[in-house]
Amino acid sequence: MYIQAAGKAKTNVEKEGEKVALIVQKFGGTSVGSIENIQNVANRVIEEKKHGNNVVVVVSAMGKTTDKLVGMARELSSNPSRREMDMLLSTGEQVTISLLTIALNAKGYDATSFTGWQAGIKTEPIHGNARITDIDTSIVAAELEKEKIVIVAGFQGLAEGGVITTLGRGGSDTTAVALAAALKADKCDIYTDVTGVFTTDPRYVDNARKLSAISYDEMLELANLGAGVLHPRAVEFAKNYGVSLEVRSSMEKESGTVIEEDVEMEQNLVVRGVAFEDEIIRVTIIGLSNSLTGLSSIFSLLAKNQINVDIIIQSITEGQPASLSFSIKNEDLTDTIKILEKNREALEYDRIEWESELAKISIVGSGMISNPGVAAEMFNVLALNDIVVKMVSTSEIKVSAVIDQEKMLEAAKILHEAFQLSGNLVSHKHSL
Amino acid sequence: MYIQAAGKAKTNVEKEGEKVALIVQKFGGTSVGSIENIQNVANRVIEEKKHGNNVVVVVSAMGKTTDKLVGMARELSSNPSRREMDMLLSTGEQVTISLLTIALNAKGYDATSFTGWQAGIKTEPIHGNARITDIDTSIVAAELEKEKIVIVAGFQGLAEGGVITTLGRGGSDTTAVALAAALKADKCDIYTDVTGVFTTDPRYVDNARKLSAISYDEMLELANLGAGVLHPRAVEFAKNYGVSLEVRSSMEKESGTVIEEDVEMEQNLVVRGVAFEDEIIRVTIIGLSNSLTGLSSIFSLLAKNQINVDIIIQSITEGQPASLSFSIKNEDLTDTIKILEKNREALEYDRIEWESELAKISIVGSGMISNPGVAAEMFNVLALNDIVVKMVSTSEIKVSAVIDQEKMLEAAKILHEAFQLSGNLVSHKHSL
Repeated sequence: MYIQAAGKAKTNVEKEGEKVALIVQKFGGTSVGSIENIQNVANRVIEEKKHGNNVVVVVSAMGKTTDKLVGMARELSSNPSRREMDMLLSTGEQVTISLLTIALNAKGYDATSFTGWQAGIKTEPIHGNARITDIDTSIVAAELEKEKIVIVAGFQGLAEGGVITTLGRGGSDTTAVALAAALKADKCDIYTDVTGVFTTDPRYVDNARKLSAISYDEMLELANLGAGVLHPRAVEFAKNYGVSLEVRSSMEKESGTVIEEDVEMEQNLVVRGVAFEDEIIRVTIIGLSNSLTGLSSIFSLLAKNQINVDIIIQSITEGQPASLSFSIKNEDLTDTIKILEKNREALEYDRIEWESELAKISIVGSGMISNPGVAAEMFNVLALNDIVVKMVSTSEIKVSAVIDQEKMLEAAKILHEAFQLSGNLVSHKHSL
Repeated sequence: MYIQAAGKAKTNVEKEGEKVALIVQKFGGTSVGSIENIQNVANRVIEEKKHGNNVVVVVSAMGKTTDKLVGMARELSSNPSRREMDMLLSTGEQVTISLLTIALNAKGYDATSFTGWQAGIKTEPIHGNARITDIDTSIVAAELEKEKIVIVAGFQGLAEGGVITTLGRGGSDTTAVALAAALKADKCDIYTDVTGVFTTDPRYVDNARKLSAISYDEMLELANLGAGVLHPRAVEFAKNYGVSLEVRSSMEKESGTVIEEDVEMEQNLVVRGVAFEDEIIRVTIIGLSNSLTGLSSIFSLLAKNQINVDIIIQSITEGQPASLSFSIKNEDLTDTIKILEKNREALEYDRIEWESELAKISIVGSGMISNPGVAAEMFNVLALNDIVVKMVSTSEIKVSAVIDQEKMLEAAKILHEAFQLSGNLVSHKHSL
């Protein structure tokens, strides 16, 4: 993204010698899911304003609005145009921004709402999953100069030719972070229905513990691994532009998890979290004659068809046709098989097999870089508990293993315990 | 309105020597009130397209959508900002345009949707009741060149500074007519839940008969008098730009009522219609010392506060303070009294009185111009039936009388009969 300077408008206004901070707050669909919840969000915004800060608020569509709109479109067409879906879905946030502004006005606070296009958010000309290319902050900055609270519709932008686009899943997170970067905000608070980032999913593992801080890279791995609190694209954006994030609860007052570049290691924590994701499929292509170009042909084809491939393993035995395994999400199986079979001759393979009801379990932590034995320890722990590892993928700060889905939660609990993520660790202190 | 020429784009495309007509169709909230109704509208659009015509469709928000949105805003504030209400309400039509486009696509027709601002509809910077100042037709014309069906959100536009505005009641009618004018369309069809313009309201008067044609001026009087099928502003627009209108049913196939400049007189019809409206209040200001400037001061003040005054009667007896009566709608009574009392000293009057539960009944017809006895006949008919006339207002083609509300329907039936509007008149023929 190219970020246009806010021009002469200073968004971090100096006020009687004291610096006024600029805070971007993002509230998701659940947080604005009802009139009562919108009142609650208005109060959180006012609290921040009362601290003397300038506030930009990014909101999603109310609760189930998007589902309702999608439902209506599906009644009319099994394959609605993506342009029209963006036109349709972008109304959801537009309703929320006006309602939140009306709520703030009623409580005596000056606020103005802006759709994505009004707030100068420009995107690629791609529907349903556009990336932000530029933000012209002049209109928002002018409102902040007047000390108004600015409410911006998340998830949406404008492509060349004046066409409305949406940013895809987690798009409102991205809007918030991109605006924070463009406006040089002091902080971007992501309000959600959990109190922060946990060592693992607290819904399934009792001892899950909230982390007070985590690095961008760790969060990126966790986000990509389906921890779900924060969209990976937003984390990447924050990392690239050095936006300090905090994930916190919209309902509770406690501080959340801060995400920034340099995070002090919590005591002895090599592994910072355990993530898991079910509904994984392993697809295996057997007898791939052209092992040289086969790999790129297959994955170009899948990418072109919007199929997200995760782990890839290729095994070549000299003189024999190669085999290739990769993992995808369950929802992409039908399309994947259809596309591969349609191109069987061009891709020159013998046959396809797949295995379903798999899960991916991962451990994440910056500390792994200097601790080479971590992956080995993970496999050891799994083996001791009779959990078979079917695929492996590693990065400098992550190890993922594909296992049977029915063993997923057991594996999560065992690893969470083995890497000492639960229990009474001294909490990491961080001044907010 | 200044209408920007469509540039090099010819909207009435010459096609193999045969002229392709451009038809603007407008469908109101009831016509698009459900997924099923949207399917029905799509079929009506396709029918027109199949005739070889180019089609621009203007739609309102689905049925009760606007009420729902207003309800949510009211839960948050008793007096929501007009800017935010426009932001909120304009989502209603945006939902409809995308759904209708999806429906057309599913039926195999190429269509593209545009919000008001995307369609180049510019308005005054007034919220809730803006007037269209200009239409830049270039984007819509470019789509028509490609023979695409163009779907435009009614009721909304964009004011300077990129702010969303709405056009107020009947706004979608105005959008349709303004687009028809700007695109030099051959015809503008207003689809609604009635089959045309009637001699009087068929819900209350059994003998009400559908007119095959009516002039702009007559329609303007009828529209202003609350006949409700078509917004007066839209009719005025159509008259000024010579847009040929037809009011017709979205559910039935029969032809409707054509509205254009020169309409042949239907047999012996001096009066073309009887309109009536209840919930009228007569306000009387007694003892107005400054009869010279008092009138303009009072009505400037009321206009500034968006109060619509209809009939005005001033009686001056030399040497005495003047009295002044005017009629307003019931809903404006509280505001009117509040404003007048607040400015009592400046306006220099003695006291205010008002009478409620009144109604206005009107007869309309171009034939009146050459028939001076029509008003007298109306008063005579009312008097013979013991209906007291409390205020009168006349124009060249209309006579209105304010009477007791409880006599309204009786008066409508009597006048409808007296002016021979019911019965087996030879239907006026008009080629469509």
